[in-house]
Amino acid sequence: MTAIDLAIIGFGKIARDQHRAALDASPVFHLAATVDPVNRAEGVEAFPDTDSFLRRMPNVGAVSLCTPPQIRFAVARQALLAGRHVLLEKPPGTSVSEVMALERIAREQGRTLFTAWHSQFAPGIPGAKKWLADKRITRITVTWREDVRRWHPGQDWIFAPGGAGVFDPGINAYSILTHILPIALYTTEAELEFPENRETPIAARLKMLTEEGAPADLDFDFRETGTQTWDMRIETDRGTLALSQGGATVSAGGETLAAEGALAGEYDRIYARFAKLIERCESDVDLAPFRHVADAMMLGRRTTTEAFNW
Amino acid sequence: MTAIDLAIIGFGKIARDQHRAALDASPVFHLAATVDPVNRAEGVEAFPDTDSFLRRMPNVGAVSLCTPPQIRFAVARQALLAGRHVLLEKPPGTSVSEVMALERIAREQGRTLFTAWHSQFAPGIPGAKKWLADKRITRITVTWREDVRRWHPGQDWIFAPGGAGVFDPGINAYSILTHILPIALYTTEAELEFPENRETPIAARLKMLTEEGAPADLDFDFRETGTQTWDMRIETDRGTLALSQGGATVSAGGETLAAEGALAGEYDRIYARFAKLIERCESDVDLAPFRHVADAMMLGRRTTTEAFNW
Repeated sequence: MTAIDLAIIGFGKIARDQHRAALDASPVFHLAATVDPVNRAEGVEAFPDTDSFLRRMPNVGAVSLCTPPQIRFAVARQALLAGRHVLLEKPPGTSVSEVMALERIAREQGRTLFTAWHSQFAPGIPGAKKWLADKRITRITVTWREDVRRWHPGQDWIFAPGGAGVFDPGINAYSILTHILPIALYTTEAELEFPENRETPIAARLKMLTEEGAPADLDFDFRETGTQTWDMRIETDRGTLALSQGGATVSAGGETLAAEGALAGEYDRIYARFAKLIERCESDVDLAPFRHVADAMMLGRRTTTEAFNW
Repeated sequence: MTAIDLAIIGFGKIARDQHRAALDASPVFHLAATVDPVNRAEGVEAFPDTDSFLRRMPNVGAVSLCTPPQIRFAVARQALLAGRHVLLEKPPGTSVSEVMALERIAREQGRTLFTAWHSQFAPGIPGAKKWLADKRITRITVTWREDVRRWHPGQDWIFAPGGAGVFDPGINAYSILTHILPIALYTTEAELEFPENRETPIAARLKMLTEEGAPADLDFDFRETGTQTWDMRIETDRGTLALSQGGATVSAGGETLAAEGALAGEYDRIYARFAKLIERCESDVDLAPFRHVADAMMLGRRTTTEAFNW
């Protein structure tokens, strides 16, 4: 297909760490501009705000939104109404309703909207999904424990309203689980630990059930200074699937399905998918991971824990 | 159309106060059974649990679920898989995800699923929707203040996880607003007051925006011992719509659209709608009100207020 000029809106950590390199390697996309009041990429056209970018670069057909989620809706809507295809970095916003509105606007505009859940593009995911497809799920255990100081140093927005707290990594677990399971899940209990000086939970223990009633226990914690763990164990009527390192390593029924030690390629595959969606004039708006966060926050039991400071 | 035998599952307050009379007056439905471990209706077949009802009355084609929301999913799924049409009293469950799963199961089974938001059936609603259809919304104010001790005496489930607290009445406001507005809304801020001894909010102040950026302010309070208020004021480019008494009274642009003083007929219209859906083999699953609650609980700022006791 022909090359597509693309702008990154919000040129912060994830844009610089992941999107930039994936775009440089992409056979389809060309990074034509960045939009950010502070940061810029050397040698690339830079705009301080979306308005001036849209006005001055009418031929840039696609944008990747990497701003904090609190301002995504207005920018995404503006870009769609200006005829651009939109990729939303995770999480896609601060409310499920706003992303549903964007989905409708994209449809009305005949443009692509893509909620890019990067964990769904980890190397072991396709194999895991395929292996589970014809199995009956009997029990699920998810352990997602990491050190917020290491992965989000000083990022206060994560503990501000709408920042999701431990669900910021937890939503990656949901995005894998809902993608690979052949059956739907729903939350029945949630215990949410809020630091006394913060607005979002730092830890959550969740109970879910599959539609058929098989139990799932999820343990999300942002205070893990020891081994960083992003593991799932999915027991079925015919063996157990074990996923670790966030989807990089997967074994099932005693066999290794993926043994890569790193998540290399996640964003390459994201951009390949975005290109395919644009080519087909389709959207891919997967709201399940986000909905599970909202459900947990709606029905959860809240406890207060010690103050968190960087 | 031919008569349809129906069972009420969960024969508590709302079933006795509203569903029973509406079914007695219905030209289509016939109350064939109640399912409840404690309560029963005189002269109507009674079962203590859903299992025995489904086994013993295979010809009862429809059920209305009026249990507390915490156990809806399993019962609704069981009824759909047994080939029954299902009406869900509000709220339809404790998680948005479970209702989406039910929607899919109903589709697979070729059965009707109906999320009955009773406030959408208040007398003034059709006129309000019609009047707003071609207007541009400029500002919205919602005031929903009632006395929980008067309307939900001793109902501790409302303050238990999943009970929604002040969003139990607040969801009625959402159900009206999302039904009559010609444009989508999303939540941007929520201040949630939790009594120090309870698990759900007793009051909420919310800020929303329409897709086009017009502001909405919502005030939900469960501690109103004075005048009980269920009011909306929707300002547009061509006049203002005022709705009060939860949709019984509506005026717009200076004209009275509905002046009824009571909500008489809400449940008659709900059952007429359910009959029509069954006749057409359609479902009506409106998740917008529930999603707004989940969004508000996800992105809200929590404060602790004085203990609540009956």
